[in-house]
Amino acid sequence: MNILVTNDDGITAPGLLALAQSMMKYGDVTVLAPDRNWSASGHVKTIDRPVRVKEVHLAKNLKAFASDGAPSDCVALALCGFLKEKIDIVVSGINPYANLGHDVTYSGTVTAAMEAAIWGIPSIAVSLDSPNHHPGPIDYSTSAEIAGSVLEAFTRYKLPTNTLLNVNVPFLPLAEIKGLRSTRLGLRVYHDKVDARVDPRGQSYYWIIGDSPTGVSELGTDVGALSDGYVSITPLQLDLTDYHLLSEINGWEWKKPK
Amino acid sequence: MNILVTNDDGITAPGLLALAQSMMKYGDVTVLAPDRNWSASGHVKTIDRPVRVKEVHLAKNLKAFASDGAPSDCVALALCGFLKEKIDIVVSGINPYANLGHDVTYSGTVTAAMEAAIWGIPSIAVSLDSPNHHPGPIDYSTSAEIAGSVLEAFTRYKLPTNTLLNVNVPFLPLAEIKGLRSTRLGLRVYHDKVDARVDPRGQSYYWIIGDSPTGVSELGTDVGALSDGYVSITPLQLDLTDYHLLSEINGWEWKKPK
Repeated sequence: MNILVTNDDGITAPGLLALAQSMMKYGDVTVLAPDRNWSASGHVKTIDRPVRVKEVHLAKNLKAFASDGAPSDCVALALCGFLKEKIDIVVSGINPYANLGHDVTYSGTVTAAMEAAIWGIPSIAVSLDSPNHHPGPIDYSTSAEIAGSVLEAFTRYKLPTNTLLNVNVPFLPLAEIKGLRSTRLGLRVYHDKVDARVDPRGQSYYWIIGDSPTGVSELGTDVGALSDGYVSITPLQLDLTDYHLLSEINGWEWKKPK
Repeated sequence: MNILVTNDDGITAPGLLALAQSMMKYGDVTVLAPDRNWSASGHVKTIDRPVRVKEVHLAKNLKAFASDGAPSDCVALALCGFLKEKIDIVVSGINPYANLGHDVTYSGTVTAAMEAAIWGIPSIAVSLDSPNHHPGPIDYSTSAEIAGSVLEAFTRYKLPTNTLLNVNVPFLPLAEIKGLRSTRLGLRVYHDKVDARVDPRGQSYYWIIGDSPTGVSELGTDVGALSDGYVSITPLQLDLTDYHLLSEINGWEWKKPK
């Protein structure tokens, strides 16, 4: 099995290395990841400039490349011609913070996985729910092992090729994690606000910032699973049609202007 | 009605002005748009730097601001504190190219509208299906009138506040447009490939590029409506859960690592 590993925090992120080394137990791993942090950068297709790719050393026996493209560009590069081998699955992460509910369209970790799904390659996005302002390095060992479990289940159950799984791991020691739950996306609650400041030259500037997002902890959702101490596994798809609203507006008269 | 108009092609784009002027018939319009082109930039939240906003002159009696943030940042700015007035609806566009099927997660035009939906404000994204390499300026007058019709229907039918409509207009004179259809997202077919080149200093670089995306023209879809000469109106939502796959994996045993 040929596994592509990528992320949105950049090639030097410890979560990327932990994931790549965990994946090496399951197949031939190639890393192709951005050369810088692209957090909250969304689903990007870089079309107005070419991208660069250079081979880098991350660990022994691990083939790795860094690109100045976005996470989703790294996936497109790998799947559309830069790599000679056919990739069987794309695994993205490990993001240090959870990607829950509405986070998924912003998240570089998840949109890299979406890009794989668009090219018909199954993918798994993995995020760890570590607290903001965690002192010292984050331990990714548990989440890397969980990523292995999900991959193993993926191959055992022969999931469809268009599968895109969004995995979030509680920030707990392995022994305290209660298990793995399949979930739907929950409701994220953002607390963003505009913080207006004045620079030393008297000009205004604005931070879009606020407290960390919270969520509505409902049973069956990713938010609920995490707060109960479970890993959440949410299958995603790319059809954003609101079928309920579609059936409502289907009979309406949409007037063409005269 | 307070209407915010934004886009992803930047404050100087003719499609933005055409849309803003059309919207002025329906309410008080404020433009807050990026100061440069952000096409295919995805759903962005700029958190690692502050953004700037400056007032600009676009047209008589039109309040307008340009920001160095992304399209979705412009919407967050407007809704989370930069503007004093409460915005009732966000209208994004007019993008010169169609945003169909899988395009919606890449599209700055659509992700600006998504941002509004996340903040509980209804939104409409408007795109014109003009051909690549169109000689001379693009005529946005028909698509701007269509945007007005959709807004008018929106207010007449009292659509729910979380409504997000993705509107695509065929590149035809008004008389030749057959009507407006409510649709689901269709299937986009991308023809991307990696074009490897060597720069004058002997270093490799890569374009992620290919022929324009096509689509599967099925009845009931946005792709199908456009190819039949109809405006497509696709209601979108932000729950990307794949409920079909969820019910499949719900009973599975997801093994926790030992």
